[in-house]
Amino acid sequence: MWTFDHLPRASLQKHYQFTPTPQWTKHVIQSSARLAEGCSASFVSADGLVMTNHHCANACLDALSDKNHDYFRNGFYTSSLAEERQCPAMELDRLDSIKDVSADIDRATAGKSGAAYSDARQAIEGRLTKECVDGNPTRWRCDIVSLYHGGQTALYRYRRYQDVRAVMAPEQDIAFFGGDPDNFNYPRYDIDLSMLRVYENGAPVHTPYLPFNPNGPKAGELVFTSGNPGRTQRGLSAAELRFQRDVINPRMIESNTLLEGMLWQYARESDRHRQESQNTFFLVQNRLKAFSGIQESLRSSSIIAQRAQEDDALQAWINADPARVKQYGTPFRQVDAALTTSRTLLPRYVGLRQALRGIAGTALTLVDGTTQRTRPDAQRLAGFHDAQLGEIEAELGAQTPFYPELETATLALALTTLRQQLGTDDPLVHTLLGHDDPDSVAAHLVQSTTLSDPKNRLALWKGGDKAVKASSDPLIVVIRRLYPAYAALRKHFNDDVTAPLNQANTRIARARLAHAQSLGQADERYPDATFSPRLSYGTVTGWTQNGHAIAPFTTFGGMYQHATGHPPFALPQRWLDARSALKPDTKLDFVSTNDIVGGNSGSPVIDRNGHAVGLIFDGNLPSLAGDLYYDITQNRAVATDTSAIISALRTVYHEPTLADELSHGHR
Amino acid sequence: MWTFDHLPRASLQKHYQFTPTPQWTKHVIQSSARLAEGCSASFVSADGLVMTNHHCANACLDALSDKNHDYFRNGFYTSSLAEERQCPAMELDRLDSIKDVSADIDRATAGKSGAAYSDARQAIEGRLTKECVDGNPTRWRCDIVSLYHGGQTALYRYRRYQDVRAVMAPEQDIAFFGGDPDNFNYPRYDIDLSMLRVYENGAPVHTPYLPFNPNGPKAGELVFTSGNPGRTQRGLSAAELRFQRDVINPRMIESNTLLEGMLWQYARESDRHRQESQNTFFLVQNRLKAFSGIQESLRSSSIIAQRAQEDDALQAWINADPARVKQYGTPFRQVDAALTTSRTLLPRYVGLRQALRGIAGTALTLVDGTTQRTRPDAQRLAGFHDAQLGEIEAELGAQTPFYPELETATLALALTTLRQQLGTDDPLVHTLLGHDDPDSVAAHLVQSTTLSDPKNRLALWKGGDKAVKASSDPLIVVIRRLYPAYAALRKHFNDDVTAPLNQANTRIARARLAHAQSLGQADERYPDATFSPRLSYGTVTGWTQNGHAIAPFTTFGGMYQHATGHPPFALPQRWLDARSALKPDTKLDFVSTNDIVGGNSGSPVIDRNGHAVGLIFDGNLPSLAGDLYYDITQNRAVATDTSAIISALRTVYHEPTLADELSHGHR
Repeated sequence: MWTFDHLPRASLQKHYQFTPTPQWTKHVIQSSARLAEGCSASFVSADGLVMTNHHCANACLDALSDKNHDYFRNGFYTSSLAEERQCPAMELDRLDSIKDVSADIDRATAGKSGAAYSDARQAIEGRLTKECVDGNPTRWRCDIVSLYHGGQTALYRYRRYQDVRAVMAPEQDIAFFGGDPDNFNYPRYDIDLSMLRVYENGAPVHTPYLPFNPNGPKAGELVFTSGNPGRTQRGLSAAELRFQRDVINPRMIESNTLLEGMLWQYARESDRHRQESQNTFFLVQNRLKAFSGIQESLRSSSIIAQRAQEDDALQAWINADPARVKQYGTPFRQVDAALTTSRTLLPRYVGLRQALRGIAGTALTLVDGTTQRTRPDAQRLAGFHDAQLGEIEAELGAQTPFYPELETATLALALTTLRQQLGTDDPLVHTLLGHDDPDSVAAHLVQSTTLSDPKNRLALWKGGDKAVKASSDPLIVVIRRLYPAYAALRKHFNDDVTAPLNQANTRIARARLAHAQSLGQADERYPDATFSPRLSYGTVTGWTQNGHAIAPFTTFGGMYQHATGHPPFALPQRWLDARSALKPDTKLDFVSTNDIVGGNSGSPVIDRNGHAVGLIFDGNLPSLAGDLYYDITQNRAVATDTSAIISALRTVYHEPTLADELSHGHR
Repeated sequence: MWTFDHLPRASLQKHYQFTPTPQWTKHVIQSSARLAEGCSASFVSADGLVMTNHHCANACLDALSDKNHDYFRNGFYTSSLAEERQCPAMELDRLDSIKDVSADIDRATAGKSGAAYSDARQAIEGRLTKECVDGNPTRWRCDIVSLYHGGQTALYRYRRYQDVRAVMAPEQDIAFFGGDPDNFNYPRYDIDLSMLRVYENGAPVHTPYLPFNPNGPKAGELVFTSGNPGRTQRGLSAAELRFQRDVINPRMIESNTLLEGMLWQYARESDRHRQESQNTFFLVQNRLKAFSGIQESLRSSSIIAQRAQEDDALQAWINADPARVKQYGTPFRQVDAALTTSRTLLPRYVGLRQALRGIAGTALTLVDGTTQRTRPDAQRLAGFHDAQLGEIEAELGAQTPFYPELETATLALALTTLRQQLGTDDPLVHTLLGHDDPDSVAAHLVQSTTLSDPKNRLALWKGGDKAVKASSDPLIVVIRRLYPAYAALRKHFNDDVTAPLNQANTRIARARLAHAQSLGQADERYPDATFSPRLSYGTVTGWTQNGHAIAPFTTFGGMYQHATGHPPFALPQRWLDARSALKPDTKLDFVSTNDIVGGNSGSPVIDRNGHAVGLIFDGNLPSLAGDLYYDITQNRAVATDTSAIISALRTVYHEPTLADELSHGHR
């Protein structure tokens, strides 16, 4: 998970006789992209054609569907530019530059702590972001990225594209063949693909791209993935790992399991309910596997005990020199104190945030955002700086689907949970429910709010604080009443948990770096994932699981063998029809040792020539522990082979235009 | 939680100037009872009138209801014996005698381990039980009770009563006022009461009983509870506590949370669905609170670290004397080994057992029970000895309600979970699902099975192994195919987990006892709860929570103040009508320092004169950690005051006959 400005050249040369040239690196950066909602992608033709996962386009396919078309389930096909349709609320960003701003942050926050530190940090981040956006927030997106847990801070600037159109997506049954039972397992037999196209001023954009290698990779071959791993915690202290195990993960697992049970039953009620809920259900199941995998690893591995020893050793190294004591202090003690505070604040602060999802979350964004906008830029919280308002507006204005029954069920469940956790007499619960029960409150709010219409959301957003204060929308009214308590909780949390943790972690990270430098090991480190562009390298290699060797490739033949005809092992009709026309030994999916985590979905697999050979869509079960550490013997990235993609487009979907565009690199 | 044959007389005399006489003890034993399904109860008139909780009679009230009567929700009322109705499948047991059989067990199992130990133990337990039942299993129930984790083994003999009739139950809205938000919280405002009557040969039985004190207890008064605490684990080793925290509890919490989410949505679908699922939903929520409370305590308290020190100290005490080494060995090492095995077996063994609930569980009982019956008594597993077959038959023959949609949903969810956890290619999953999906398998099995009719269940049971092998009932067919794998898993688990854990725990318990005796502290110990009769003492006292003093009593006045009119804070119409006729300062509920856990529900609170002064129905939140330890400053038992019961019967429910029976002690 190397940052593009700090690639492990020496190691690559030594082990693979390959050194990425500046041209190679620039080509990969400019051909790679990030989907704002949390996926990775790549340009695969000079005419703005983008390759990503089917599951990264779920929300788009859902939104384009209507009662006569279920594009998510049945696929989406076009044969001309005119048929390509804009994905509501989808944004694609491409990395433009990286700048180290550690010194600016240090200067602005020197000698400050608690609220003063939060305020100063907020102000400098706001100023840096504003300068970076250069007065054009629709064109540029600028993110402050805290690397090495604050050991380094960088400013990442992206070119934004907001007109992204659906070009082609296969059926859900082949994109997610094997369904949840096979998810995070291997062998897999999936073409988890969607093709999008980026437009500007009504025409496809022209960008650098990864030429499509129609043969895929060979066993043992060196391959790269370029993507945006979401979040890892490989640098957490032992105390924070324990906090994850004992507080955060149980909470996340329980709330998502409850939601999973609810959605499971909701989907069984009717075909409409199944269609409405399938996207959320998939997200919830994915999140659950991730959290459960991490939790399993925290419970059964020796990672916490190991980290505790490392922490003790680092503190001992600090204590051994008065100059180091002065510089780094006792950061682990500060972590302990912040976590103690966090434990008392979490049920109300995080509980409330979890309860306000969906349409209630939109109302909160409106109340919060318009209140923040009344303040000078430097005094606003992260996410609400002038440079970032474009993103909020795009989200509020998007034609996202609104399912009243599902919204009501979700909100009612969230309110029930909140009341259960905080108790009936808690003031937050009282503000939300009054003397009423969660079900009728949720039904009333969802039925009577006008916020399901993007026009109304935008009108309030543009009307600002005054319009929101004057609004009689029942959902706005209740969130407005709740807002002072929410803002106070957030401030308490930011000042007494986030700020001291940030400071302590910065000191820990810098002490680790200094310690590593003193041992000559500083170049062997990469920062934890931060949903910013990273390059990972590896080879196409199977692994051994419970004594069984798992081969790196699967084939079309294996897929047909596993097709029982019953979901989730039912193949779409097109695939049944095409069986005799496909070569059974065509490679379908493969695994490699690339280090990926959530957020890497949709990453291209790239060969040393800079050509696309695969499309990342999953990791194996052990890779879930990748959040905490990477184990080359067990962790595997799972990708669809480009040879399967080309065969499917030509033989199954009869899409020669698209297949030709991939083969030639342009339309 | 003292056993009746080992009461803390010295302590009671010293602190309360009270010594229970043999007459007092006998009177309490004979007036107390256990409901076989997992509750406690007491006789409160000479004519077999029994007092227990509303939530202990849920299943009965559900079963008696039909589409015109919801006795669970609206209450059940009678004005003559003729109107009293038998509760299907309800059994009440009254303790008859306790016999120490430790020496018999030791003799039979001396020098054996693994499968040989399991077999020998099974055989001796079967023989002792058979002798105890004395050829009359309908009249006597005999349980082998392992006390002090095997340090002592006792044979408990109960007089069985299988004709238990519903006499009176108030509405669910007053029995469980405050609902789930208030559950395990205090102050409470509930009358969690049901009145039953035990019959024999068609007439009420005559038994000793607790005279009803219509004034309830005073603040500070010494009170006793006589009941059947289900299970505590206060004697677990540190390794087992860690296993609970890391393996067992997460599993239980996740599976029940998933079920909770499903049932929550199921209940919202229609009034019928709500009625069908309310009993299960309540059980699931209760179970969740219990497991979550224990888990919270394991995570945040120092109990595991403390126990680890105690374990180390005990092993050191053993190691200090070669004779002790010879006698006790290294039991903690044996515990570790058994837990390692348990961890590998749990997903399949426990996963399968959890999946086979409801009607599938009935099918398993039939296949398993008839197979066991083909063996000589001594070679059968616990639960299947001749003396216990009456209980199985009673369960199979009971007219319990059967809701096909709820059964289908529950089974489909269970099968989905099993497939997810074991993987699609697991042989167990394959046997259950074939090439089909969980939903259609569940729908087919529930629709086509004939086991919902008790006549068919009994016919198969009576036909024995031959009838079950010949059955073409689809559910029997699939369970029959599954049975060999299930039986093998169970044998593996019993031989390699249960047996070595039992042996190790017996050695640990005896070493602890010997160690305590060497320090003169042996009399201060009571065994962990085992759902067998126990006496606990305490005083009526509030406590301090987050700096606030909680008063011991609540009143009718407080209840009316909390009645918002919306569920779960809506009072039944009868209570709204009676408001002006009730005295607001009448005591409603109270807390005491009595040490109770799940299973104590329905226990009488008894004063030093042996009179009933209250009815246990809940504990406060800290009491959930009572599974692991008892803290007198925090743990509180929650009871309904007898003064509230008498007032409610006379003034709210206009039941003078019943109130008079309580006041006079006979009809």
